[in-house]
Amino acid sequence: MAEGTRVISLLTDFGLKDEYVGVVKGVILSISPDVRIIDITHAIDPQDIVQASFIIEAAYRYFPEGTVHVIVVDPGVGGERMAVAVQIDGHTFVAPDNGVLGLLLEGGRNASAVSIDNDAYFLSHVSTTFHGRDIFAPVAAHVSAGLSIKRLGRMLRPADLAKLAVKRARIENDHTINGVVIATDRFGNLLTNIGGELLDHINPAAVAVSLNGREINGLSTTYGSVKKGAPLSVIGSRGYLEISVNFGSAANYFEARKGDRVKVVM
Amino acid sequence: MAEGTRVISLLTDFGLKDEYVGVVKGVILSISPDVRIIDITHAIDPQDIVQASFIIEAAYRYFPEGTVHVIVVDPGVGGERMAVAVQIDGHTFVAPDNGVLGLLLEGGRNASAVSIDNDAYFLSHVSTTFHGRDIFAPVAAHVSAGLSIKRLGRMLRPADLAKLAVKRARIENDHTINGVVIATDRFGNLLTNIGGELLDHINPAAVAVSLNGREINGLSTTYGSVKKGAPLSVIGSRGYLEISVNFGSAANYFEARKGDRVKVVM
Amino acid sequence: MAEGTRVISLLTDFGLKDEYVGVVKGVILSISPDVRIIDITHAIDPQDIVQASFIIEAAYRYFPEGTVHVIVVDPGVGGERMAVAVQIDGHTFVAPDNGVLGLLLEGGRNASAVSIDNDAYFLSHVSTTFHGRDIFAPVAAHVSAGLSIKRLGRMLRPADLAKLAVKRARIENDHTINGVVIATDRFGNLLTNIGGELLDHINPAAVAVSLNGREINGLSTTYGSVKKGAPLSVIGSRGYLEISVNFGSAANYFEARKGDRVKVVM
Repeated sequence: MAEGTRVISLLTDFGLKDEYVGVVKGVILSISPDVRIIDITHAIDPQDIVQASFIIEAAYRYFPEGTVHVIVVDPGVGGERMAVAVQIDGHTFVAPDNGVLGLLLEGGRNASAVSIDNDAYFLSHVSTTFHGRDIFAPVAAHVSAGLSIKRLGRMLRPADLAKLAVKRARIENDHTINGVVIATDRFGNLLTNIGGELLDHINPAAVAVSLNGREINGLSTTYGSVKKGAPLSVIGSRGYLEISVNFGSAANYFEARKGDRVKVVM
Repeated sequence: MAEGTRVISLLTDFGLKDEYVGVVKGVILSISPDVRIIDITHAIDPQDIVQASFIIEAAYRYFPEGTVHVIVVDPGVGGERMAVAVQIDGHTFVAPDNGVLGLLLEGGRNASAVSIDNDAYFLSHVSTTFHGRDIFAPVAAHVSAGLSIKRLGRMLRPADLAKLAVKRARIENDHTINGVVIATDRFGNLLTNIGGELLDHINPAAVAVSLNGREINGLSTTYGSVKKGAPLSVIGSRGYLEISVNFGSAANYFEARKGDRVKVVM
Repeated sequence: MAEGTRVISLLTDFGLKDEYVGVVKGVILSISPDVRIIDITHAIDPQDIVQASFIIEAAYRYFPEGTVHVIVVDPGVGGERMAVAVQIDGHTFVAPDNGVLGLLLEGGRNASAVSIDNDAYFLSHVSTTFHGRDIFAPVAAHVSAGLSIKRLGRMLRPADLAKLAVKRARIENDHTINGVVIATDRFGNLLTNIGGELLDHINPAAVAVSLNGREINGLSTTYGSVKKGAPLSVIGSRGYLEISVNFGSAANYFEARKGDRVKVVM
């Protein structure tokens, strides 16, 4: 897994205001000088484990096989939660065990998991407030450099890892889906937890999406398929239903925010 | 062009809130593992083609020859606009054909251009909403790795590419320039479309700049040449006239925003 | 110092809205194609030399020995201030001589310093407003590639470098420390200038911290040691006293901002 290029991705709620991300990268390069470090984003809403879970699940498949993904959204830092390393689909995920890997583990994928206990791979001084720097960064650097995750701690059953509070939406009877807004992007597009595959064999014209008392009729394939300023629903680039406004902000149009309910009738 | 180091620069309106930029980089490294990826900025105002055009023109010359610049400000994604690759001055630009390369092409520079049609160099599934990931990133990675742009599609005449709505300002009679504010930077400095060369042989003391009913007399060379809190005009580091306030924000001082008219009399 | 991997870190107040950081990186890679460039942060409050000084002091030790750290918080650009290169503890710092290296130089560490005068290592055209691009970036690239700092200019006595306006707090009589808030991080945590070593041998329960008329009793070791929404004080991951709110923002809770006074009684 460590042949040729080696990549570490970072997904956190650290923001870019402070030096936290830079320090994490300094630690990684101190251990594994040749690894390429890519930011997925550091703007996960503070401590929003659900959002991080959906984003990593949508993003990881676009990285080279063998990538080590470091996910630090960690409200329980310094407390009792475990740290874990999980391998799925040729990728390794290093994270606190708080449900942030829940979506990746859904559906019974073939995964192997270990707890991160072996402080031989930590920084020599471990703080109580910044495990991203002191534990996750050095562990990821060592794994990226070829260390087997078995060396990190004891094997875990994936089923024993923490669960995610919000799951992918399901079809509840033959024609209704009750979903939820997971995140608002820069453009005001609304990401939902409604997987596009649920709408795969449905007549797009027969889909009605409602949110905060307003309704969108039909499923579009491009933003430009409606007038400027008009709302649309689309299977977004992440594979989930998204709600958008052509040349505008759906977050504003629907006065919508994270956690708002989205109903699909088809 | 692909000898030694290879660099891809990214200039988009994606912001850093979401995973979009990270995913683009994952795609690039999956195809071209050794390329260096540099962010120019991802904070172009959403869908502001003019702003992106001025920024890439100011920035590209500071990158190594052979750099592939990916510019994705793409309100027409999924619609009829072409995607293009253009080579100018030893650099390659990959972008939607919506005018964003307009400033680079001004003045009849020697350029070669092709349409991007050959889906052998795209991701295997192309979405309708995220060509940055599915088309521009993989094409840039292949070009950076040595692919001739001729392989991407048919040759185009540079003159046939989309034009930019706003051009560089010109001297309209011997002593007046009517320009416009293109962007506000982090410090509140105002970038205009007035090229510094227009003021090259003018007595700096004889230049009067007006904006929103206020006037600046004279052209400064440093911020510190006026009192704290006082406005100044300066040929900025990008080579254009900029309006600033020493230790302050010109955007606030002039209540100015993008699109406001700037008049120079000399 | 230039064997194996070579790293340049960047710490500025440029923000990420504009192309400034990208252009700095383009210049560096044009000179030193193989160097790794890591952003510490670009969100130092505009022209806040004190904040930058505390952040670089907390961050640099997590980077590989031999790293060249470029610090550009430079309100005096284009004026009379010197540019300097300083070597401390196996790291090189390149910065304007305005006090931003003050904290690194405190306590009489073994440092060597030179002025940056030799324009052979600058870009061929040096602007009056963007020395980050025209001087600091190319100088850092050359030093990272192996150039001795002695080639940059004349030797300086570290004691002659500009001093920082705010210093680390001290114990003023046996039981009181008067400190100050240096920065607010993304989570609303408040960084102070009170070094953790001052509280090393004190009974944590006996420490009282006050800020803006509110008091925290006792020193915590984790955020979770108090109820959700309750304030706490902690020796933060940077080694300084920080004031936080568990699952909340101390900046909001205390209506606190940079410069506010923090008093510790023990």
